[in-house]
Amino acid sequence: MLHIRPAEPADVPLILELIHELATYEREPRAVVATEADLLRDGFGGRPFFQCLIAEWDGAAAGFAFYFFNYSTWRGRPGIHLEDLFVRPEFRGKGIGRALLIKVAEVAVDNKCARFQWDVLDWNQPAIDFYHSLGAKFMSEWRIMRVSGEALAALAAGEPIATVAEPS
Amino acid sequence: MLHIRPAEPADVPLILELIHELATYEREPRAVVATEADLLRDGFGGRPFFQCLIAEWDGAAAGFAFYFFNYSTWRGRPGIHLEDLFVRPEFRGKGIGRALLIKVAEVAVDNKCARFQWDVLDWNQPAIDFYHSLGAKFMSEWRIMRVSGEALAALAAGEPIATVAEPS
Repeated sequence: MLHIRPAEPADVPLILELIHELATYEREPRAVVATEADLLRDGFGGRPFFQCLIAEWDGAAAGFAFYFFNYSTWRGRPGIHLEDLFVRPEFRGKGIGRALLIKVAEVAVDNKCARFQWDVLDWNQPAIDFYHSLGAKFMSEWRIMRVSGEALAALAAGEPIATVAEPS
Repeated sequence: MLHIRPAEPADVPLILELIHELATYEREPRAVVATEADLLRDGFGGRPFFQCLIAEWDGAAAGFAFYFFNYSTWRGRPGIHLEDLFVRPEFRGKGIGRALLIKVAEVAVDNKCARFQWDVLDWNQPAIDFYHSLGAKFMSEWRIMRVSGEALAALAAGEPIATVAEPS
């Protein structure tokens, strides 16, 4: 029996476990440097940067959806960006991922959002096909540009370190 | 002489003008349905969804940077997503776009952000080259999936309208 509920501060250790499990699934187990203190401060403090839904199956933690709000200047409305969606392997095939996506879509509608979006790897065709079946469009022309780490510090100091363009 | 400052509620009519000018530049003049009331409520109310910097050249409004915070589950830190960056044509060639990007990068560093990112059209090579010169990386494998309008309402109701996949 599936139950989806908003995360509470007491869920922080579970959320961090699920983030680790997702990173391991993505073959990047060492990429997670986030701590429980980070998630508690940034999700449940005076200025929340994210929100999270927990999926439970017969009372056991089965997965999560981790999201935050963005904004459309054209629509004059917030939107939702889904950052992480994960269902533990032993709970797959029960429609939990789909149920989580529907629940986040409900949150979007309740908040009068113009859009609900997430990122996908361009080679992950099974995921893209699944998202198409849920009514999502593939925004084929848009790419993300990102500055982080030393490059971000250098840019903020007005002395950017140029990156080398990828071969296209 | 350039001056960059945070937007105030009194700037809402100017912000909407700049959003319209950017949409016209992008050849989508009718795409903007946002109103001043929307921007006032969502940017300057009890729950701000975005922030905005205004660039002035000799006291005249020259451009803006419109951004909001996102979140990295791996880093356990917020990040900044730059939604709009625009410099009015008569003020170009003065380094105002670069100065706005540097200022937003400063905001990112001040807020201990892990990342500063924005979206670019994959065919806009001059923009991509400029962003590379500022230290940004082109995230070539990631694509955005988006649900909006009737498809969003249908998904929230648990009855998604499947989209047709684009030919790849």
